[in-house]
Amino acid sequence: MMRIDILTLFPNMFSGVFSESILKKAQEKHAVSLNVINFREFADNKHKTVDDYPYGGGAGMVLKPQPIFDAVEHLTKNSADQPRIILLCPQGERYTQKKAEELAKEKHLIFICGHYEGYDERIREHLVTDEISIGDYVLTGGELGAMVIVDSVARLLPGVLGNEDSPVQDSYSCGLLEHPHYTRPADFRGMKVPEVLLSGNHQLIAEWREKESLRRTYLRRPDLLEQYPLTEKQKKWLQEFEKNKR
Amino acid sequence: MMRIDILTLFPNMFSGVFSESILKKAQEKHAVSLNVINFREFADNKHKTVDDYPYGGGAGMVLKPQPIFDAVEHLTKNSADQPRIILLCPQGERYTQKKAEELAKEKHLIFICGHYEGYDERIREHLVTDEISIGDYVLTGGELGAMVIVDSVARLLPGVLGNEDSPVQDSYSCGLLEHPHYTRPADFRGMKVPEVLLSGNHQLIAEWREKESLRRTYLRRPDLLEQYPLTEKQKKWLQEFEKNKR
Repeated sequence: MMRIDILTLFPNMFSGVFSESILKKAQEKHAVSLNVINFREFADNKHKTVDDYPYGGGAGMVLKPQPIFDAVEHLTKNSADQPRIILLCPQGERYTQKKAEELAKEKHLIFICGHYEGYDERIREHLVTDEISIGDYVLTGGELGAMVIVDSVARLLPGVLGNEDSPVQDSYSCGLLEHPHYTRPADFRGMKVPEVLLSGNHQLIAEWREKESLRRTYLRRPDLLEQYPLTEKQKKWLQEFEKNKR
Repeated sequence: MMRIDILTLFPNMFSGVFSESILKKAQEKHAVSLNVINFREFADNKHKTVDDYPYGGGAGMVLKPQPIFDAVEHLTKNSADQPRIILLCPQGERYTQKKAEELAKEKHLIFICGHYEGYDERIREHLVTDEISIGDYVLTGGELGAMVIVDSVARLLPGVLGNEDSPVQDSYSCGLLEHPHYTRPADFRGMKVPEVLLSGNHQLIAEWREKESLRRTYLRRPDLLEQYPLTEKQKKWLQEFEKNKR
């Protein structure tokens, strides 16, 4: 079972996401144990202060090293496994599916979620093993980033996903974006399903899907094609898409 | 006041994030109204089914057009504002801070969150105005993506952020990653704060911060420097970093 500890000042933020859907299921199946800890409890000063003014002046507060170092040491002291200690921050490595697969092999993950404040640099330099950003946008804290990583990792753990959960996962693992999907009715307010999908001809359907998957990737994420090992047929389709564009 | 409606099959997932921290504050200040709606309520069949098998066969289920079309029409029928209708999906445009700033100017946002299933293509083609992906990783549903976008947009609305909330927001708006932060104590278990920050010399401190901000960007996100208008001083620093690297 993977152990995941989350250090945050806003533990209640996790209540909805951790008790529904995939993370509920992953806990019920004992694939993961999720523990949310308020690191304010580890502050060794009378007022339980966790942040302080920045050296050198400037706006904003900075998270002190002591409460976070002590909290992490408390969480690791009886653990034989070397944990990954992950800091959520905009300066971190960009999160990808490859990183999710890497983290899914670990036994113990600890997430540190700051909120508004910056982190004292000594936390980055001497405590954490990974700094991760989930994207180039500014969030109020690290909590949503931690939830995103936990969701993407938990669904990779053995036994968590059933067969009903498959289609979305294909998008990055096969290197192309997914083809369009359609379900009943065949005619919804005059909007119709492509004929080929109603034909019953499995070979034609497979070919249509392969082509539309390539088309969507070409139109929306051409960067994904740079490393992609194209077949001769796919190369011809790409030439056709190029021609249609002109 | 911005109105945000979220269509989901897992409304409880939003309870923690929407009732804490910045989103709690944004609602209290009447900067935003957040409404979470289970679109299963709009299914017009007896069993309230929202998905069905894919035409052409294959694994996984596909979300039917009817419940989602009807839910969106219900949400827009008495609204004078043209809403942005946002589909969370891996095939979407990559979310960025620029998109957050664009969405923050709108009056009404509607998010459609699928879960496991694919979307019937007619939803994409005839209903939604924006398809967004928050990053190149696979999540179980669109709910976390919607929370990420709502957080990043809400904090840009007038009156939501106080002065205490400033430092993290600099990272993308100035085009470089943030410089390191330090707070007390000056010596934590032998790990020391850089001398210059204790010097009281504001000019030296400002210069150190500018240089470290550039260094971190150079080391971690050189792509951000491609479009960046470098000063002469910054160009010299970059040469110095290059030299030290060899």
